[in-house]
Amino acid sequence: MPDSRAVGVFDSGVGGLTVLHECLVTMPNEDFVYLGDHARLPYGPRTRDEVRRFAHEIGVYLERQGVKMVVVACNTATSVALPDLQEQLAVPVVSVIVPEAHAAVQVTRNRSIGLLATELTVASGRYEQLVRTLDAGARLTAVACPKLVPLIEAGDTFSDEVTEAVREYADPLKAAGCDTVILGCTHYPLLRPVFQRAFGRDVTLVFSADETAREVAVTLARKGFENDASREGAYRFLTTGEPDAFRELGERFLQLPLANVEHVEVRELEAVA
Amino acid sequence: MPDSRAVGVFDSGVGGLTVLHECLVTMPNEDFVYLGDHARLPYGPRTRDEVRRFAHEIGVYLERQGVKMVVVACNTATSVALPDLQEQLAVPVVSVIVPEAHAAVQVTRNRSIGLLATELTVASGRYEQLVRTLDAGARLTAVACPKLVPLIEAGDTFSDEVTEAVREYADPLKAAGCDTVILGCTHYPLLRPVFQRAFGRDVTLVFSADETAREVAVTLARKGFENDASREGAYRFLTTGEPDAFRELGERFLQLPLANVEHVEVRELEAVA
Repeated sequence: MPDSRAVGVFDSGVGGLTVLHECLVTMPNEDFVYLGDHARLPYGPRTRDEVRRFAHEIGVYLERQGVKMVVVACNTATSVALPDLQEQLAVPVVSVIVPEAHAAVQVTRNRSIGLLATELTVASGRYEQLVRTLDAGARLTAVACPKLVPLIEAGDTFSDEVTEAVREYADPLKAAGCDTVILGCTHYPLLRPVFQRAFGRDVTLVFSADETAREVAVTLARKGFENDASREGAYRFLTTGEPDAFRELGERFLQLPLANVEHVEVRELEAVA
Repeated sequence: MPDSRAVGVFDSGVGGLTVLHECLVTMPNEDFVYLGDHARLPYGPRTRDEVRRFAHEIGVYLERQGVKMVVVACNTATSVALPDLQEQLAVPVVSVIVPEAHAAVQVTRNRSIGLLATELTVASGRYEQLVRTLDAGARLTAVACPKLVPLIEAGDTFSDEVTEAVREYADPLKAAGCDTVILGCTHYPLLRPVFQRAFGRDVTLVFSADETAREVAVTLARKGFENDASREGAYRFLTTGEPDAFRELGERFLQLPLANVEHVEVRELEAVA
């Protein structure tokens, strides 16, 4: 029996749309509902407790919408809120960090892995912990990239400023001899060619979006949660902020038509008060 | 360029041959060398330091044979020696526990997972730790099965004694409502039908052998370590004990011809003295 429930995906903003893009391409028969928490972004400057509460509210909201799985398409929310969210929800929760760490360990030949991510994600140490759980002999060199998300969100993916920032962040990983680099932020696929040129063809880049979509697909299949393979799936968008602003910025990240965007409130009553 | 190096696989005895079986079926183009540490089995009653030293000696021995990867096809050695071995060897080390824990989390619908394994493996807590790293909301119910390995090694897979022991170990997992059961010992595939009958068709059984072979295949592919796809691979056997005894017991576990078995010494000189 096909499972007709949608898959819920969330992020603080538009970055997670790169994960949704890969999901839509990998699982064209599944329905997806994407929620962007635009009213409260960015999560970066928030406290851990705040991010955990936001993730909880969104998770509960999506669960009430009847989703069969929640995908945390946000490295910051994953690095601080994943275990709590998994304990709180009845549906399975898949996130961006575990699949990437696993892929990096599978890919590397010299066991020297690099990580480019936001400051909070690097500071959380989650990637390091997971890489060492999977291969205690692998070395992870992590570099925080504070300049990239603001540039990408401003629509800048080709300027000298972007190229120089990428080169600056890539240099320590090249010096460390990394043959595999985790791009641990959902915004970074928009700079894929700039990263690949900075690192050269001998370095394998591992993206959140690709690895997470693969994990979602395998997990749905193994649970018997797949929808009918012959149908065409639908997808829709929810935002806690302004639908128009979301639509405008979102299509660059989704690389597919982003039609209906609906405003929703996810906050719980006591939190609103 | 195809990578013609063999894959090294080891276990204390014959149990790991069920892992080798799945590897030979999954990767018929790869060469394998299997080492059974019969002179020092079983690892169960050994101290952690002893098992770590044995794993180190075998790993170094296989690395000197020029293998491209070491597979720890032994739950006991994995649960106590894996991180050390990964730090000590230059080649990547894949083991039985991580792929199984990952598979169980992917498979379960109700997030209630059972584990049947030896006393030492259950006591190590490795499965619990990994399952919770992958899904903090999953529950693991673990049952140690001390009667099974001796019965299986004695050639008994159909007696009332076996059926009753399996039923006894399965009961607590059925009572806990587990919909997925990890068979966390390389000997257990020989009782696959007995386990499946005890649990019924609604419970999914996850075997070390299948999941580890899958992880080895994906890892070789992603590293670009695969041998020529069109060739037929060879496999050979080494034992620290008696070749004849190994050959006699081994074919039941390998389910393929087990021709040449060679006696080798893996102990380092200071350890022999």
